[in-house]
Amino acid sequence: MALRAALRNKCGLSGLLSQRSSCSSHGRVCVSPVLVAQQRNNSTSPKIDVEFDQSTGVAVMRMQSPPVNSLSLDFLTEFCIGVEKLEMDKGCRGLIITSNQPKVFSAGLDIMEMYGKSPERCGEFWRAVQEMWLKLYSSNMVTIAAINGSSPAGGCLMSMTCDYRIMADNPRYSIGLNETQLGIVAPFWFKDTMVNTVGHRTTEMALELGLLYNPSEALKIGLVDQLVPEDQVLTTAAQAMTKWLAIPDHARQITKSMMRKPTVDKLTSNREADIQNFVSFITKDSIQKSLRMYLEMLKKRRA
Amino acid sequence: MALRAALRNKCGLSGLLSQRSSCSSHGRVCVSPVLVAQQRNNSTSPKIDVEFDQSTGVAVMRMQSPPVNSLSLDFLTEFCIGVEKLEMDKGCRGLIITSNQPKVFSAGLDIMEMYGKSPERCGEFWRAVQEMWLKLYSSNMVTIAAINGSSPAGGCLMSMTCDYRIMADNPRYSIGLNETQLGIVAPFWFKDTMVNTVGHRTTEMALELGLLYNPSEALKIGLVDQLVPEDQVLTTAAQAMTKWLAIPDHARQITKSMMRKPTVDKLTSNREADIQNFVSFITKDSIQKSLRMYLEMLKKRRA
Amino acid sequence: MALRAALRNKCGLSGLLSQRSSCSSHGRVCVSPVLVAQQRNNSTSPKIDVEFDQSTGVAVMRMQSPPVNSLSLDFLTEFCIGVEKLEMDKGCRGLIITSNQPKVFSAGLDIMEMYGKSPERCGEFWRAVQEMWLKLYSSNMVTIAAINGSSPAGGCLMSMTCDYRIMADNPRYSIGLNETQLGIVAPFWFKDTMVNTVGHRTTEMALELGLLYNPSEALKIGLVDQLVPEDQVLTTAAQAMTKWLAIPDHARQITKSMMRKPTVDKLTSNREADIQNFVSFITKDSIQKSLRMYLEMLKKRRA
Repeated sequence: MALRAALRNKCGLSGLLSQRSSCSSHGRVCVSPVLVAQQRNNSTSPKIDVEFDQSTGVAVMRMQSPPVNSLSLDFLTEFCIGVEKLEMDKGCRGLIITSNQPKVFSAGLDIMEMYGKSPERCGEFWRAVQEMWLKLYSSNMVTIAAINGSSPAGGCLMSMTCDYRIMADNPRYSIGLNETQLGIVAPFWFKDTMVNTVGHRTTEMALELGLLYNPSEALKIGLVDQLVPEDQVLTTAAQAMTKWLAIPDHARQITKSMMRKPTVDKLTSNREADIQNFVSFITKDSIQKSLRMYLEMLKKRRA
Repeated sequence: MALRAALRNKCGLSGLLSQRSSCSSHGRVCVSPVLVAQQRNNSTSPKIDVEFDQSTGVAVMRMQSPPVNSLSLDFLTEFCIGVEKLEMDKGCRGLIITSNQPKVFSAGLDIMEMYGKSPERCGEFWRAVQEMWLKLYSSNMVTIAAINGSSPAGGCLMSMTCDYRIMADNPRYSIGLNETQLGIVAPFWFKDTMVNTVGHRTTEMALELGLLYNPSEALKIGLVDQLVPEDQVLTTAAQAMTKWLAIPDHARQITKSMMRKPTVDKLTSNREADIQNFVSFITKDSIQKSLRMYLEMLKKRRA
Repeated sequence: MALRAALRNKCGLSGLLSQRSSCSSHGRVCVSPVLVAQQRNNSTSPKIDVEFDQSTGVAVMRMQSPPVNSLSLDFLTEFCIGVEKLEMDKGCRGLIITSNQPKVFSAGLDIMEMYGKSPERCGEFWRAVQEMWLKLYSSNMVTIAAINGSSPAGGCLMSMTCDYRIMADNPRYSIGLNETQLGIVAPFWFKDTMVNTVGHRTTEMALELGLLYNPSEALKIGLVDQLVPEDQVLTTAAQAMTKWLAIPDHARQITKSMMRKPTVDKLTSNREADIQNFVSFITKDSIQKSLRMYLEMLKKRRA
């Protein structure tokens, strides 16, 4: 499988450091000497920094793929490897996912993976999106999203797979599955995940209108569980993790599986059809045209 | 099919105008010269006025069957024809449903269609109720209920099929599926629609007790989405429609279908059994007796 | 069947009175002369007092198994017999369940039935727990929980099976399915019942963390329907019952069955597998160890 092959070829520490240098060159110093020392034995990669504290059993994954942590095939591959490694480590009981990029948790699926690509490549990309969701939604670890920036589309999906969501209380940030605004459609398992989180009617409105919610609205509908000032997102996540880890793992894991297995099984047993469906939809002329217009709009906005 | 046959024999403009005269004779002038001119090319019928604005792509259906827009077989037949015509018109993207009768959106299923009728006639009636629900709940158009009056039972069902519900903030109005109060039972697809709107527990209480909610309560439980002063219901619906129509049709339609298809399929594949079930229930002596008592109570109240 | 056999051998009035004496010896006088006189013709048993008022059609079941109404095999057997007798009595339309023990509604499943017992005995116990749930969740009577004390685990389950829940507004009381806190797992039908009551996401958090809610929190998430001062719980239940009984029985019963039958059928058709599952889980060394530690902790707390 592609992911396992990638696992074997994963980038080493030097890759991390060069990435981290480029990160600090954006005016934010991400790496303290202590962290670098700690991370010698950690799984790391250019796009994601994994810091695992064996004393607490908690890992923190920091997404650091400039500028907005887009979920490209490369990103997703590294992300899944990181999660898989932690999942297989019996000492790792909890995972906090956060962002090292300013103002954004993750901007969601990388549109460049969907625009002008071959059907094969689109299919490979979609399989990686599925894999990310499958791994997170059925993780045996306690997973907490420390949402320290905007989190549209795939970023919202990633957040919703977690057991608990803490968001920075900054009204400029937003979260939601806004696919229809781009003329594309959130697939059934995005929808199922949202229904499981905020219920049927809220999901119906949210998906049909492609709604993005500010933090207060997201809290009100239950899309996130807690709002804190931006500089407290990670410490609050660590505190919440302590509470979750007080529950015996086996009882919590069986319970989590009972809640989520039907939803997971639905994708697992329809995985190839879902890929076919995505590929045939995204490679349509009309959809490619929509994406081109969106990309041109983005370009103009930057200029 | 009965509906298509009726479509061919639909009433012309003269029917509309005589109906409209009787409408204005109740003290409300419904027809401005401008509207009459606009409607020359519109589908109209005595019980429902359809006004389609090609420039906006939005149609407004005004129910105008005195005194309370009861959903009789004739009413439902005309209603479904109206919806079907708009659905087939590619230029029509949105539908606003409202009432021309004072104080009531729709009083729901016409009890006279259920009392003292032959099983065949009851079955034909029930098929028309199903058809109304199927057409609205799976409509490709954006559907908005502009609920400018009370909306019990079938009126509530009609409202719940829409994508968005705006209700007049008049505490004397109420909305809900109050069937059990009359000794009858909302069928499974009424129930499914309500569960999809307000969730399982609220539906359980609402249906078992036959609860009618005032506008504030209805907003609180999510049975309606927005309250506005009575004279702003229609303009607010038009504004909301603009927001909904900003989303690309194909993405919104696929999403809507994804949310609602399982519920629609459930009735489609159980349609004949559901008719049989209704007919055998409603023609029971005990139920007919309940209905007679209810009708006598209504008579006394009027006298 | 075990329950029917037990029904034939049910305890008589003398059993009740000795039980009641021990109850009043705890400083609360439970039996007024009037009540004793009334109860001559009532079904009673040592652990549960059933008072049926034929004039109103409403029965009140008072759980009185010191100290905390633990759901032992004996308790459940008597409880189910009581419910079955009322269910078969056409004159009985409503059932109020409450506690005669101070500060607690029911502490839930009796841990002594799960600790150090043979697989056969564990299986018999679990079948009785299933029976209690099946009888209550599918009861044709209106069932109201008058929750006048804490109601963890099985106590919460029993409350959730009712049509309506009124809780004493005492912040020292709590309610919830806290199984994971003891290292055990609420089975799928506990989960289904909670999802039907408070929705998927709230259930997910509640079950994974084994959350106990104080009355205000329970009201907020919809785990209970109403809070009143402790001394008004029973009178409020009686008033609520009047409202529920105003609805024609047949319409309410069909509606209730429509809402709950899928959930009931799921256990009915998986009953033996669920028992096997419980027995093999609970007799595991690791689980027995967890229970022993919990029991020792309880002992120390009392000492």
